Amino acid sequence: MVTRMSQLFVRTLRDDPADAEVASHRWLVRAGYIRRVAPGIYSWLPLGLKVMAKVERIIREEMDSIGAQEVRFPALLPREPYQATNRWTEYGPNLFRLQDRKGSDYLLGPTHEEMFTLMVKDLYSSYKDLPLSLYQIQTKYRDEARPRAGLLRGREFVMKDSYSFDIDQAGLQASYDAHRGAYINIFDRLGLTYVIVKANAGAMGGSASEEFLAVLEAGEDTFVRSPGGYAANVEAVQIQSPAAIDASDVPPPSPLPSPNDHTIDTLVARLNAERPRADRAWTGADTLKNVVFMLVAPDGTRTPLVVGLPGDREVDLKRLEAVVGPAEAVPFADADFESYPALVKGFIGPQVLGERSESKVRYLVDPRVVPGTRWVTGANERDLHVVDLVCGRDFTPDGYLDVAEIRAGDPAPDGSGPLELARGIEMGHIFQLGKKYAEALGLKVLDQSGRLTTVTMGSYGVGVSRAVAAVAESTCDEKGLAWPRHLAPFDVLIVATGKDAAVFEAATTLSIELEALGIDVLLDDRPASPGVKFADSEILGIPTVVVVGRGLADGVVEVRDRASGERTTVAVSLAATAVADAIRGD
Amino acid sequence: MVTRMSQLFVRTLRDDPADAEVASHRWLVRAGYIRRVAPGIYSWLPLGLKVMAKVERIIREEMDSIGAQEVRFPALLPREPYQATNRWTEYGPNLFRLQDRKGSDYLLGPTHEEMFTLMVKDLYSSYKDLPLSLYQIQTKYRDEARPRAGLLRGREFVMKDSYSFDIDQAGLQASYDAHRGAYINIFDRLGLTYVIVKANAGAMGGSASEEFLAVLEAGEDTFVRSPGGYAANVEAVQIQSPAAIDASDVPPPSPLPSPNDHTIDTLVARLNAERPRADRAWTGADTLKNVVFMLVAPDGTRTPLVVGLPGDREVDLKRLEAVVGPAEAVPFADADFESYPALVKGFIGPQVLGERSESKVRYLVDPRVVPGTRWVTGANERDLHVVDLVCGRDFTPDGYLDVAEIRAGDPAPDGSGPLELARGIEMGHIFQLGKKYAEALGLKVLDQSGRLTTVTMGSYGVGVSRAVAAVAESTCDEKGLAWPRHLAPFDVLIVATGKDAAVFEAATTLSIELEALGIDVLLDDRPASPGVKFADSEILGIPTVVVVGRGLADGVVEVRDRASGERTTVAVSLAATAVADAIRGD
Repeated sequence: MVTRMSQLFVRTLRDDPADAEVASHRWLVRAGYIRRVAPGIYSWLPLGLKVMAKVERIIREEMDSIGAQEVRFPALLPREPYQATNRWTEYGPNLFRLQDRKGSDYLLGPTHEEMFTLMVKDLYSSYKDLPLSLYQIQTKYRDEARPRAGLLRGREFVMKDSYSFDIDQAGLQASYDAHRGAYINIFDRLGLTYVIVKANAGAMGGSASEEFLAVLEAGEDTFVRSPGGYAANVEAVQIQSPAAIDASDVPPPSPLPSPNDHTIDTLVARLNAERPRADRAWTGADTLKNVVFMLVAPDGTRTPLVVGLPGDREVDLKRLEAVVGPAEAVPFADADFESYPALVKGFIGPQVLGERSESKVRYLVDPRVVPGTRWVTGANERDLHVVDLVCGRDFTPDGYLDVAEIRAGDPAPDGSGPLELARGIEMGHIFQLGKKYAEALGLKVLDQSGRLTTVTMGSYGVGVSRAVAAVAESTCDEKGLAWPRHLAPFDVLIVATGKDAAVFEAATTLSIELEALGIDVLLDDRPASPGVKFADSEILGIPTVVVVGRGLADGVVEVRDRASGERTTVAVSLAATAVADAIRGD
Repeated sequence: MVTRMSQLFVRTLRDDPADAEVASHRWLVRAGYIRRVAPGIYSWLPLGLKVMAKVERIIREEMDSIGAQEVRFPALLPREPYQATNRWTEYGPNLFRLQDRKGSDYLLGPTHEEMFTLMVKDLYSSYKDLPLSLYQIQTKYRDEARPRAGLLRGREFVMKDSYSFDIDQAGLQASYDAHRGAYINIFDRLGLTYVIVKANAGAMGGSASEEFLAVLEAGEDTFVRSPGGYAANVEAVQIQSPAAIDASDVPPPSPLPSPNDHTIDTLVARLNAERPRADRAWTGADTLKNVVFMLVAPDGTRTPLVVGLPGDREVDLKRLEAVVGPAEAVPFADADFESYPALVKGFIGPQVLGERSESKVRYLVDPRVVPGTRWVTGANERDLHVVDLVCGRDFTPDGYLDVAEIRAGDPAPDGSGPLELARGIEMGHIFQLGKKYAEALGLKVLDQSGRLTTVTMGSYGVGVSRAVAAVAESTCDEKGLAWPRHLAPFDVLIVATGKDAAVFEAATTLSIELEALGIDVLLDDRPASPGVKFADSEILGIPTVVVVGRGLADGVVEVRDRASGERTTVAVSLAATAVADAIRGD
């Protein structure tokens, strides 16, 4: 049946929504595909839902093809399983929590590891039952601190999550590889430009994990890659520690009075003025900056941490939180400094830091701060720094922490060349969870020798609603959406222009002919002006637009390709087959 | 691809789940279609999900066929729209409420009238845009006081809800009729035996409404029907008020000392002993029973109500709550009696009741208590009743309230004969909402004369997950599930029995042949005993079972029809086409 624009539940908007930061958000709202209901919470209009259904279908086909079985869990979940794995607490304010009428605690599922683990424990008991992969396409909830960019970071969203269950690591590796292959197929079929990068497992626990990032400026994730093929989310980069240095000829530390030198720049300027080096100028990389954080655990516990790193680099907060999570790292407030009088703001040096020091504050340093390196750093007195403080001789940190910002041009950790930085949207994430959840919830099966063995698990996610936005983001242009054919809500948009009844008749006939050929048609039969209709045709992003209008007098219609803008003229008598052939030939 | 039982994520259970009250619940759990996660909250295993997908498809096709357009709203909704219609309060404890990290109030949507109204208000502005019907298939939440019967009354469940928008009542009637027709098709296609009954609109507001009840003993709803075609939910029955009676010859009321007569039975016995009637014996129907309730509004406000009705009938609490809802009606407690000393427990009479009486307690009576009727009732003193109290002469109620129990044999209100009572499961509900929501939320469009007119709405629901249970309930037998073909998770179950490799090979070959013919096959290739496999084949309820076993030596397999139990023997060489023909021929 031909869908008529006059009856389709859609309205395009002339103006950008006020909160739209990225193109996909702007156009999905303006084209009437989605509407905002609350921060990070959207409704799907008919056009948007059609696109999402096509994305879901691709995902379902690829999951089925690796033998994963579809199930569906509730979104409203009891507290107990999440309590057992400690995620009830660890998720902190990101979890939507509620109580039922009897006062029992519930949550809205952010991800379902616990539930799948318990389900498999309920049904299965032997190694013979494994391997097993289960998946669901389901609505998930996370109370994001900063929902943004429309569907890209929402609080209610659709996700495909799957879980694998194996008797041993070799099995897990095989399940992981199968999912990795399926994900490659999914993102290829979605037509996204993406990279597979090493990832930080974050709150999920577990070891090996990779992310599939759509390479898009609108993304929130930063990743690095090298000419030699290294690729990682910045949160997962582990830089190479240089070799220790022989510091036996370094003179003992000497004080450097430095009134008001609160910045690395003024300190470096003073060094070059008062203590010029023979070999080269001093730079920020010669200084050791000590940055103080308060780590706030989900249960509210506050623990101070000082991070020491070369003064020319900043701490990357996302990298830091990837390591200290689920705790949150917040800057030291003045009141915190009062509680730790040994820490002199602006002049903190390693001499008073460390768990065995007078301050008892944990002190972790950048991997570049190896034994034997010499530093200009704070002397723990106002307006005083110290020169030639040597790591391992004059101070010993509690350990290393690799959270400094990664910069373009930094060497790849595997020696594969200088790193390039780019932005991406996390589309998929695959984890080797290992036994964390199975152990916490007691999922064991009998192995071949009849012994109870803890099952090892993988966890795999694809953002389904996010994928709709990512495809929109990567295909839209300055005029609107421009869907790839196989994801578009309709194959063709037929625009009847003018007021001539013959035009509307011809457009209707062509629509019916195309539908008979199996083409999904949207017919713009509205009594609107050609200008309005053409603008809408560009905003809506249907890949092929057929204009039935003035040309009809000459027996022709115009066929426009939305993405390329190409226009061709076709005899009206041949239009149906020509358009159908063009669509199928793509 | 042939699905193998050895790999399918399913386990049948030998025992009934402890909380299973109804057959569908028992068998859906035992057959591994669903699992309980929390009270009224279930997970769907692969077999269950396949059935639900088929139900969803039928619903979608029928909704599309009446031109309804599919959309999808969030389940997590902001408070404000529900505040505007007062449902935030009226839903009382049935609503799951929560707060986000910023302390904003949210709810889990029990139904989406408000959201659809606002969406249409956002997009549409003219009568030319109407009529419009929108629907969604989506997860809904209600914090039921007594979740029960598995999927039949859950707290998280899948529902198809649709909403119509029209410029006037004639349009609403047409939209309503279209939905009614679609629902008839849906429930016909689901193969349910159902009745369409007059319904009470309950918390939805609005006027005309009908329910589609699957006629099943396991149902929670009671409905009535007459030989002449009257059908209504008991909550919606409105009995005929008899004509007023001339009471001019009735003697004045006289006291009847009645020590310890706290029941209608002892009172009637005393009447027959002490004041025998000439014409017939006294019965409970001659007495006027006054039942005291406290109505507790969702905001906690408590208002007393006395219901007067013939002493041989009880108040039907469901009928009462259908009228007084969203308030809850609870029996008077002793403390309540202390607050209303005029009400003498066990001896309450109309003389002290009514808003203008000394007690100020609202007094509503059964429609049978018409002016001129004479009653034996309480005299508002301990151990004292009164005889010949005449309605309209000796007391005047505040109004009428039709909440007495309906009994088999009662006359149908429309004179179509005696009523029969039966039980059913509410599968669908269609409402003419009218302007309630559009008014509360300001949904107006320009009418043909350019004036702003409030849109009139309909609301229509089908319980999708409940439909799976209702079909199971109406088709299962004492051995397990027995799905109708078009809803079954597989077309055929092929059971290979014994240990002979040739049997498993033949079963596999047959499975592949059937799949090639477009038949969806489940192959039981487990190394289990024939007894286990046959029992499972009955529990699982796949409509056709082919047994490949001992008969193979003679070149035959056995074809069993799950529902009828019929067994036929077919040559193995012809089995694929014979089975495929049989399945298609059904």
